[in-house]
Amino acid sequence: MGIGGRRWNGWGLGGERFPVAATARAWLSERVGDGTPLPMIDEADVTVPPARPLPDLPCALARDRSARLRCACGLSLPDLVALRAGAIAAFPDAVAFPTSPAEVAALVHAADASGVALIPRGGGTSVVGGVTVRPLAKPTVVLSLERLHGLLALDCISRLATFAAGTLGPELEVALAPHSLRLGHEPQSFEFSTLGGWIATRSAGQRSTGVGKIDDLVAGLEIATPAGVWRLPPQPASAAGPEPRRLLLGGEGRLGVITEATVRVRPVPELEDGVGVVLPGWEAGVAVCRSLVQDGVPVEVMRLSDPNETAFGTALTRLSSWQRRALRLLGMLTRSEHGCLLLLGWAGGAQEVVLARARAAALWRSHRGVSLGSSPYRHWRRDRFRHPYLRDELLGAGWGVDTVETATPWVKVSDVRVAVSDALRAAGAAAGFAVAVLCHLSHAYRDGASLYFTFLWPLRSGAELTHWQLLKAAATHALLARGGTLSHHHGVGTMHASYLEREIGATGVTAVRALVAALDPHGTLNPGVLLSGDGA
Amino acid sequence: MGIGGRRWNGWGLGGERFPVAATARAWLSERVGDGTPLPMIDEADVTVPPARPLPDLPCALARDRSARLRCACGLSLPDLVALRAGAIAAFPDAVAFPTSPAEVAALVHAADASGVALIPRGGGTSVVGGVTVRPLAKPTVVLSLERLHGLLALDCISRLATFAAGTLGPELEVALAPHSLRLGHEPQSFEFSTLGGWIATRSAGQRSTGVGKIDDLVAGLEIATPAGVWRLPPQPASAAGPEPRRLLLGGEGRLGVITEATVRVRPVPELEDGVGVVLPGWEAGVAVCRSLVQDGVPVEVMRLSDPNETAFGTALTRLSSWQRRALRLLGMLTRSEHGCLLLLGWAGGAQEVVLARARAAALWRSHRGVSLGSSPYRHWRRDRFRHPYLRDELLGAGWGVDTVETATPWVKVSDVRVAVSDALRAAGAAAGFAVAVLCHLSHAYRDGASLYFTFLWPLRSGAELTHWQLLKAAATHALLARGGTLSHHHGVGTMHASYLEREIGATGVTAVRALVAALDPHGTLNPGVLLSGDGA
Repeated sequence: MGIGGRRWNGWGLGGERFPVAATARAWLSERVGDGTPLPMIDEADVTVPPARPLPDLPCALARDRSARLRCACGLSLPDLVALRAGAIAAFPDAVAFPTSPAEVAALVHAADASGVALIPRGGGTSVVGGVTVRPLAKPTVVLSLERLHGLLALDCISRLATFAAGTLGPELEVALAPHSLRLGHEPQSFEFSTLGGWIATRSAGQRSTGVGKIDDLVAGLEIATPAGVWRLPPQPASAAGPEPRRLLLGGEGRLGVITEATVRVRPVPELEDGVGVVLPGWEAGVAVCRSLVQDGVPVEVMRLSDPNETAFGTALTRLSSWQRRALRLLGMLTRSEHGCLLLLGWAGGAQEVVLARARAAALWRSHRGVSLGSSPYRHWRRDRFRHPYLRDELLGAGWGVDTVETATPWVKVSDVRVAVSDALRAAGAAAGFAVAVLCHLSHAYRDGASLYFTFLWPLRSGAELTHWQLLKAAATHALLARGGTLSHHHGVGTMHASYLEREIGATGVTAVRALVAALDPHGTLNPGVLLSGDGA
Repeated sequence: MGIGGRRWNGWGLGGERFPVAATARAWLSERVGDGTPLPMIDEADVTVPPARPLPDLPCALARDRSARLRCACGLSLPDLVALRAGAIAAFPDAVAFPTSPAEVAALVHAADASGVALIPRGGGTSVVGGVTVRPLAKPTVVLSLERLHGLLALDCISRLATFAAGTLGPELEVALAPHSLRLGHEPQSFEFSTLGGWIATRSAGQRSTGVGKIDDLVAGLEIATPAGVWRLPPQPASAAGPEPRRLLLGGEGRLGVITEATVRVRPVPELEDGVGVVLPGWEAGVAVCRSLVQDGVPVEVMRLSDPNETAFGTALTRLSSWQRRALRLLGMLTRSEHGCLLLLGWAGGAQEVVLARARAAALWRSHRGVSLGSSPYRHWRRDRFRHPYLRDELLGAGWGVDTVETATPWVKVSDVRVAVSDALRAAGAAAGFAVAVLCHLSHAYRDGASLYFTFLWPLRSGAELTHWQLLKAAATHALLARGGTLSHHHGVGTMHASYLEREIGATGVTAVRALVAALDPHGTLNPGVLLSGDGA
C-alpha cells in the first residue's frame, strides 16, 4: 500500500477528485457569497531548509527534500493553507522507516538517549495537528509506520486478528476477507489511515453505531515507549486495576509508538442493506435515532443530517427528481426549509436485517418519516470516502471549509447543535462574512450521540487563517460551554491541546501528564501534542 | 439501607442461612473426605486494642469497639478465618461517616495533610483484601461511604442516573423502578455491595453478558483525591486523549474516593425468561456459549457449569426426579460422569425474547443439548444471592472453600479450565489432602469468556490458612501461565497485588504507580492495595 501516489498538499491520490457540482456552488454562493480561491504553488517551488545534523540512529532514514516535505504536515485546514502557500512552519530533519517492532524500539531508545524528538506517523491524515512537525530546538525525526503493515496472526476461534500498526484500512480488510471476517472500522479516512493511528486517536468509523469505536475493538497491543516495550496480550475483560489498554488509547503518540494491535473481528455479513428516510425536521430525526439505540434495534450505520446538510447534500449529489420532490414536499408540510435525511444501514444475517429494518420502519413512520428507498444509502456508501477531496476543490473555488465534532448526552444534542451553529454564524458576522453550517448526527449510543459540524465561508486573501481561527475558536467554546466533548473522534492534536483541561479537568491533565512523564520522561515523543505548554 | 443487621464475622444478614444439604455433604465427603469445623468465637471475646490518637478530622468519627471491629476486615477467606478466631491483624483507629461529597473531600484533604491513612469502604464485601485494615505506622481511619446513598439525578431522555457512591444494589434498583428503569448490574454481592465499590473494582454482574460490565455502564463520576476533587460529567464517548473515566475504574481506592457516579440505565424489560439446558460435556457447552455471542444472539445471563459444578449444584438443590434422570442419562450417553448445565436468561420485549430463545434453542440442539425447561433458571434466580452464605456453613461443617476467577480468549478457555483444576488438585495432593474443583463460565464476550472456579477441601485445624495459601497460589500461577487474567471481577486488593506485574507488565506497573503518585503523592489512600511493596 504505502503512500505512493498521495498528493503532497491535499487529500488522497493525485488522480482522484470530487468536483463541486454547479448546484452546490450556487447553493454556497447564495448563502455565503463568493470568495477568493486559495492559490497553490508547485511542489518544486517550496523552500525546504537544509536538515540539521542528527546523531547516529539505528534505522534507515530518508533525508531527501521530498520525504521531508511530504512528512511535514497532516491534513488540517491550517496544514492545507500552509502547504498550498509553501509556507510550512517546520520540516523534519529526517524520516525514519523502521521495518520491525524491534527496530521501532531501538529507534525510540536511541532517539530518547540522544535528544532527538520523534513524531510517529501512520497515514498522516490528522486534521487536528497530530502529526504536524513543530519548530523544535531538538533535531526532529518523523517515525513513519509505513513499512510495518500486514496481518501477523489470526485466531479464528476467538475472532482476534493481530496486525502491524501501519496497516491501512483497505489492506486490513483485504487480509481478513479470505477468512470471511471483517473489522468494520471505516472512518472517512479509511483508505489512507492506519490501525495504529485509529488507536492513538480513539477513532470512530462510519459503522461505529453498530460495531463500536476503536476503543471497543482493541483487545491487545504492543507499544514501544522510552521506558521500554509494553506488550498487552488480547483479553476479553479484566479487573486487574485500571485497564492499561485504555490508558494507551488516545495517547496520540505521547505515550509510545504503537507497533502492533490485536483487534476483535466479526463475520462478513450475509447481507448489507440501507435506506434513506426523510423526517419532517431535526427533532423528529433525533427522536428516531434515540429510540433505535435505546430500544435495542440493531443498526450498523446511523447518520442524520440537519436541514442545511440535507440541502447541501442534495445539491451535491444526484437524487432522482421524485426524491427531490419528496424532500421539498416534506419541508413545506413542516414549514422547515427542508426535511432531514436519515441514513440507516444494516449488516448481518438476512433474517436479522429484515427484522431490524421492519422495527426501524415502525419507528420512523411513527415520527412521520418517509422512506426514499435504498438509493440514498447506496449513493452515500459509494461516495463516502471521497468527500474529503471536496475540501480541496472548495478551497480552490474560494470557500474555506472545516469541521468540528463532539459528543453529548441525548438531552443536550439539540442545544449543542443550535449553540455551535449560532456561534459559528455570529463569529463570521462579527468579522463581516457569512458562514454556512451543516450538521449531522454521526454515531448514536444509548446515552447520547456525536454531532459533526461542517462550516463553510468565503475566503478572503490573506485572512484565510485568521478567519478560520475565529470560527474554530467560536465553535469549540460553544460546544464545550454546552456540555459537548472536545472531540468525538478526531482527537486533540495540537489544535485542541489548550482546551483539554476544559474537558478532563485540571486533575485529569495532572494524571495524563504523570502518565507521559512515566513513559516518556524526556519528552521525546510528539512534544506539543495532546498537552499544551510543553515541547512546543 | 446501611449495614444494620450484618454479621460481624461472615456473609450477609444475621438471620439468613444457606444450610449445606445432606446430599451436598455426602458428595463432598465422598470426594475430599471430612475436615475439622472452623470454630467461631463470640464478638464479645475479640480483643480490640485501644485506638491510637488521631489529629482533628473534619468528619463524624466512630471510635467504639464495635465500629472498629466491624470495619477491620472484608470477606476474603483469610478475613473469615481471622474473624472466626478473633485473630484480627489490625483495626482502624476510627471509622468516619461523611454525609456529603464535600465532607469526603475535606476528610481526604485533612487526612492527607496530617499523615492519616484512609481506607475507603463501600459494602465491605471484598474477597481479595481490598478493604482489610493493614498494620500501618500511620493512624488509620476507615472512610465508610454508608451515609452517601440514594438517587441524586435522573435524566430520562439520556437514560442516565446519578447516585451517591455508597448506594447499595437493592436501593439503586428500587430508586429506578418507579421510572420503569433499571441498571441490571447484579454481582453475587448485590445486596451488600455499593455502586462505588463496583466501580473501584471493575465489577461484573450476573447479567453482564447482556448489560455489560460496570466499565461499560459508568458514564460519569466524581472522585475526591488528595490532589483535588475530580468531576467527570457523563459523556457517551470522546476522543479527548486517554479516557479519564477508564483511568479511575479499577483504582480500588488508591486514586481517590468515588463519591458519585452517573450510570447508563435501561428500561425494565417487558419479559424475563430463562432456561436450563444440559449439554453432553464441557466442550459442547463452550461451543454453544461462543456461538451465541459471536452470532449476536441476544442473551442477558449465560452460565455454563462444568460436570463437577453441575453435580455439586444438583446435590445442593432440589431438581425434580426427571431432571436428575435427564442429567444422569446424558452423562451416561456421553460417557462423562455428568452433563453440563447451561443457564440462559433473556430480558426484553416479548417478541425479542421469544426470537432470541428460538435462535439459542437451534444452537443448543445442534450440540445435542436438552432443555430442562425454565425451573433450573428460576431456582438459580431465587438463590443466586444466597450462595455466599453457604461458604460460612461449609467452614462450620469442616470444609474450606474459596474462589478464583479469570477471563481469557475463547481459544484458551478449555486449557485454562483444565490447568487451574489440575493445579489445585495437585497442590492439595502434594500437601496430603484432596480438593474438589468446580468451574463455570460466567460471562461471555465475542472474543472470550470468564471462568469462575470454586475449590473445596477438608479443613485441618491450624492449617486452614497455609492450605488455602497453597491452593490460591497454585491456581493463580496456573491461570496466569495459561493466559488468563489475574481477575475478571473480584479485583486485585492486597491478595493479588504481587501478581499484577504478571498481567500488565513492568511498564504497566510503572504507569499505575505514576497515576497513584500524581493523585495521592503521600500514599494516604488504601496503601498496600493494588500495588505491592508499598504502604504495607
